[in-house]
Amino acid sequence: MFKVLKKSKKTKARITSLSTAHGKIQTPIFMPPATRGFLKSLDSIDINNTNSQIVLVNTYHMLLKPGDKYIKKYGGIHSFMNYSKPILSDSGGFQIFSLKKMVKITEDGALFKSPIDGTEHFITPEKSIQIQHNLGVDIVMAFDECMQDSYTKEEAIISTQRTYRWLDRCIKEHKKLNKKNKTSRLFFGIVQGGLFKDLRIEGLNIVASKDVDGIAIGGETIGNNMEKTKEILEWLYPYFPKNKPIYTMGVGGSPQDMIDVSIRGVDMFDCVAPARIARHGNLLVGKLNKKTFKIESNFKDNRLRISNQEFISDKKPVEKNCNCFVCKNYSRAYLRHLFISKDPLYSRLATFHNISYCQQILNELKENIKNE
Amino acid sequence: MFKVLKKSKKTKARITSLSTAHGKIQTPIFMPPATRGFLKSLDSIDINNTNSQIVLVNTYHMLLKPGDKYIKKYGGIHSFMNYSKPILSDSGGFQIFSLKKMVKITEDGALFKSPIDGTEHFITPEKSIQIQHNLGVDIVMAFDECMQDSYTKEEAIISTQRTYRWLDRCIKEHKKLNKKNKTSRLFFGIVQGGLFKDLRIEGLNIVASKDVDGIAIGGETIGNNMEKTKEILEWLYPYFPKNKPIYTMGVGGSPQDMIDVSIRGVDMFDCVAPARIARHGNLLVGKLNKKTFKIESNFKDNRLRISNQEFISDKKPVEKNCNCFVCKNYSRAYLRHLFISKDPLYSRLATFHNISYCQQILNELKENIKNE
Repeated sequence: MFKVLKKSKKTKARITSLSTAHGKIQTPIFMPPATRGFLKSLDSIDINNTNSQIVLVNTYHMLLKPGDKYIKKYGGIHSFMNYSKPILSDSGGFQIFSLKKMVKITEDGALFKSPIDGTEHFITPEKSIQIQHNLGVDIVMAFDECMQDSYTKEEAIISTQRTYRWLDRCIKEHKKLNKKNKTSRLFFGIVQGGLFKDLRIEGLNIVASKDVDGIAIGGETIGNNMEKTKEILEWLYPYFPKNKPIYTMGVGGSPQDMIDVSIRGVDMFDCVAPARIARHGNLLVGKLNKKTFKIESNFKDNRLRISNQEFISDKKPVEKNCNCFVCKNYSRAYLRHLFISKDPLYSRLATFHNISYCQQILNELKENIKNE
Repeated sequence: MFKVLKKSKKTKARITSLSTAHGKIQTPIFMPPATRGFLKSLDSIDINNTNSQIVLVNTYHMLLKPGDKYIKKYGGIHSFMNYSKPILSDSGGFQIFSLKKMVKITEDGALFKSPIDGTEHFITPEKSIQIQHNLGVDIVMAFDECMQDSYTKEEAIISTQRTYRWLDRCIKEHKKLNKKNKTSRLFFGIVQGGLFKDLRIEGLNIVASKDVDGIAIGGETIGNNMEKTKEILEWLYPYFPKNKPIYTMGVGGSPQDMIDVSIRGVDMFDCVAPARIARHGNLLVGKLNKKTFKIESNFKDNRLRISNQEFISDKKPVEKNCNCFVCKNYSRAYLRHLFISKDPLYSRLATFHNISYCQQILNELKENIKNE
């Protein structure tokens, strides 16, 4: 069940609630990717402690290692990860189409070779949905072709039309499996269309007309090129169905990006960047300005480069306004020492901070909407 | 203050209590090395949760990175690590003498080149003690020459005599600093003597005659060659002063080694092995047999090789009798998946289990002594 709890009067942001088999999530929400069934250095207790409400796992990666049949045999991904909150899986489309030369698309599906062991896999829309049901996730994503920006109009039309034909097959398989297994997994369709306004709007209307629990906006541009992402959201906003969650796939390269899509009517987003930049020594800082919706700090790009010599005996936490376990317990000096010593503990603490920080910024946004 | 709480009637094991500036520790005790100010993947809260009572930091490593002057400026190693329990530092002797060709020993001390940046460091007994006081540890170790087994009797005599002359200089510097800084750090002397029975006994008597708070037994053999280690302990046991803790340096390659020295009258020991083998995929299992004092399991060397295919969907914990957070929350299948996926989370969970397991085995030994 999806409920709009409050709409901002100042922006298009809203607070909503979505019920899943593993509990409710409240949006706007950042869904950190636990790509391979773990969130890069964080265990499930850590994930909960970052105030994350849901994580994303990756169909493609779980198919290759350890294999969805083992996860099914185990009793599902929640049990495997010892994680009791909602889990969303992407359909594998993004990763498979990233293989480019190693993938062959037909009307029936996509043939690709595993970069791990060279074995051939043929993924159809039905197969992708089966894998996601085997994993046992709460939100299943449609199997689509993640469209590149370089596509000509003609190529884009061929690709999107196939994606929406696949959508019907996904929905059919999803309903069949939910019925057969007596489960109540949710299903999201995905809007493609690249940089073509008419294709994007048409796509949204097609997806919104189907029996879907949420609408995702995908493609190479989304999250990757934030100016274009914002433009696409301006095109689509008038056509958003108000009774379904909207999810931009791959948005969140910075917390500012999360705010930027939230105030344009988006409810959900995921991105590997906060965890990845953490591992590379960039820790998120800054405070949300309630009037401008800009995150502000004394650091360039609101990132503290922890390797800097200036932090060698700096007893301050990474971000003084942050309530996370890392900022409450450890200093910049200690994190710098862990980073230059290349200990896995650095990876954990840095990832923990960056994920927590993103959730905190979104909680601030929610508080602002509540207090309007 | 040191107190013997209970002596075993069946073995030479005993339960003792040692008070330090950061609280009491109860022996027999395994002190996991937090060599560079962190316990390989574990933060200070994790360390507490493994039921470790004290950790060891390394003077040599902290001198090179970040430098003891920064730790002093910061307010000490406890504050830097956010760790409030006792900390012991080794003197750096072991690491410096491991550099072999890069070190030159004189009566005054040891000259060596940093393997990090090639800078020359001259460490005297006084300097080692100063660094340890700068770090702000609870137990300071004497600066000694860690003797190799290959020494001739003549070389061994020259080395041990110098080590005990250095001991006097260490004690003098230690007392001076404790007085000057109004601290009450403890000081342990170190017995050397290699494989020579007369030198070992003579060394023990010399160290025991000095104003030391504990007696350590060092050298290449100790922990490295357990048969010889046990033999040396048989030689020395009759001469152990009963009112001081006995510490074998570098013992604990396996939990069995910890039991083996405990039942030969040793109170304290440290070893990097439990954490190191964890990272390499070896997880400790087995139960202590109360009669034979042997750890028993179905696995070779009481080590479960987590990479084995047989664990791919094994829902059991690593060790069913283990109460640690990892065994309570995660399965062999999940740990195997993390290991083959090379995620830092594996390193944390594996290290956590192995350290917790060692503490648990020692707690079992203590319970046995209490219930005799």
